[in-house]
Amino acid sequence: MTELNAITHKGTTLETAPTLYIEGSGIRFAYRRLGPSNGTPLILLQHFSGNIDAWDPAVVNALAVDRPVIAFDNAGVGRSTGQTPDNIAAMARDAVTFIGLLGFSKVDLLGYSLGGCVAQQMAAEHGPLVRKVILVGTAPQGGEEHLLAVLKEAFSQTETPDPRLPLFFTRSADGQAAGKAFLNRVYARKEDRDTDSGSAVTDPQAKALITWCATPDTEHTILRAITQPALVVSGSDDTMLPADNAYAMFRAMSNAQLLLYPDSGHGALFQHHAFFVSHVRTFLDA
Amino acid sequence: MTELNAITHKGTTLETAPTLYIEGSGIRFAYRRLGPSNGTPLILLQHFSGNIDAWDPAVVNALAVDRPVIAFDNAGVGRSTGQTPDNIAAMARDAVTFIGLLGFSKVDLLGYSLGGCVAQQMAAEHGPLVRKVILVGTAPQGGEEHLLAVLKEAFSQTETPDPRLPLFFTRSADGQAAGKAFLNRVYARKEDRDTDSGSAVTDPQAKALITWCATPDTEHTILRAITQPALVVSGSDDTMLPADNAYAMFRAMSNAQLLLYPDSGHGALFQHHAFFVSHVRTFLDA
Repeated sequence: MTELNAITHKGTTLETAPTLYIEGSGIRFAYRRLGPSNGTPLILLQHFSGNIDAWDPAVVNALAVDRPVIAFDNAGVGRSTGQTPDNIAAMARDAVTFIGLLGFSKVDLLGYSLGGCVAQQMAAEHGPLVRKVILVGTAPQGGEEHLLAVLKEAFSQTETPDPRLPLFFTRSADGQAAGKAFLNRVYARKEDRDTDSGSAVTDPQAKALITWCATPDTEHTILRAITQPALVVSGSDDTMLPADNAYAMFRAMSNAQLLLYPDSGHGALFQHHAFFVSHVRTFLDA
Repeated sequence: MTELNAITHKGTTLETAPTLYIEGSGIRFAYRRLGPSNGTPLILLQHFSGNIDAWDPAVVNALAVDRPVIAFDNAGVGRSTGQTPDNIAAMARDAVTFIGLLGFSKVDLLGYSLGGCVAQQMAAEHGPLVRKVILVGTAPQGGEEHLLAVLKEAFSQTETPDPRLPLFFTRSADGQAAGKAFLNRVYARKEDRDTDSGSAVTDPQAKALITWCATPDTEHTILRAITQPALVVSGSDDTMLPADNAYAMFRAMSNAQLLLYPDSGHGALFQHHAFFVSHVRTFLDA
């Protein structure tokens, strides 16, 4: 690695960037940093059970062409130490701690699924820290109650090579082809891969996600507190957190754009990665 | 005008391009042509009562930077001759006639409001002619029944300087400021302006629009026949053809993206013109 790269992280990719560590408040956070050093950093908030290497390089590397992008493991996840909390508010606090350790005073958030719940909480509670927020395949507090059944069914399909194929992609030929291409990209990194999550991560995460989705918030207190520009994204056929959630979130927020993709499930951002990257850049650069 | 401009129309703008005429099937169509000569032409299909000069130069000129863009008056409208039909199917036939006269065998469509109904009909019935379709502030057949009341109320507000201010823009400070900026752009052209529409245009157009919106199509026959890539766009607070129509259209089409903008009405594409242009280019260039 040249000295320039060491400073700017420019030209590195999710597959080749070294995993870095930073410690504070009793937690050692694992992360990778891509892209130039200047510009508002985009912080990626990951889905249930996912780690740094569950992000799609096609999305992350393309976004890092012209802005700093940070993928990290929140407390307890992957190679980060600490306890995985069983509630969204504590996950949001841990993420704010991590961002503070990196010295950022203003960031953009890309929250996906569980990470989208964390991003909502952060945007609502930490206005000065969060410039813009992208919410993908996620749900508002109190939005969705059938999630547990869907997760159980998906993880019981042991004949599929990876639960993300049926969970994240539609059953159409295009959907499954996109799913396999996604998995190929995700497994391209061979060295220094992140650690898979066990029940010490997934049990509290599941509790946090289910509690979030089942706790009524008929007044949309959290969404109404998000005044930053927001981009809400969903797939047409997301079976876990259906697109109706995205439409409801768009309706409840004062400054949100809604973007829905065709023939796509929970992994719409990976299936339509070229569109998604373009739309995110348009949104963040405006 | 240089010879190069005469051929390519490149560098001309909606405000400066000469109005051209082309005749066939007993109709003399008025139109303006912008942008380079190569690339798939983008044909603009205008809203109820609107003519060529009702398009927003901020949208049209930006789109014409890298593709041919054609604004025209359909039969009977503005300075085009012929009878304005009282049904969408005939308007679609007239538009196909016009495109044929220009010698195009493959086009993209941008249909706005009434023009969006015409675009749906064209995309469904003329598959080989239509490559991609953008549907803005419009409704599916059978989608909307309260339109007449809204139109009547809007046109009765004689104290407003232009019915488009209350009809196309939200009442928020941002919405009304965007509306005034839009009207300034629309009236920038002083010479060779298009002719306003009288009842010979608006009576049959109103009948066509209301019939379209009130004729049930519970099976979404037309939308299901649209297999081309589609981009459906609406404002969050469109009082004429509410965003629920856009969501329903997205749901019924097999290959549509949905895009909704915040704090905006029927004129969302003019209010959020920079976003809209970027999103249209991303969609058409994919």
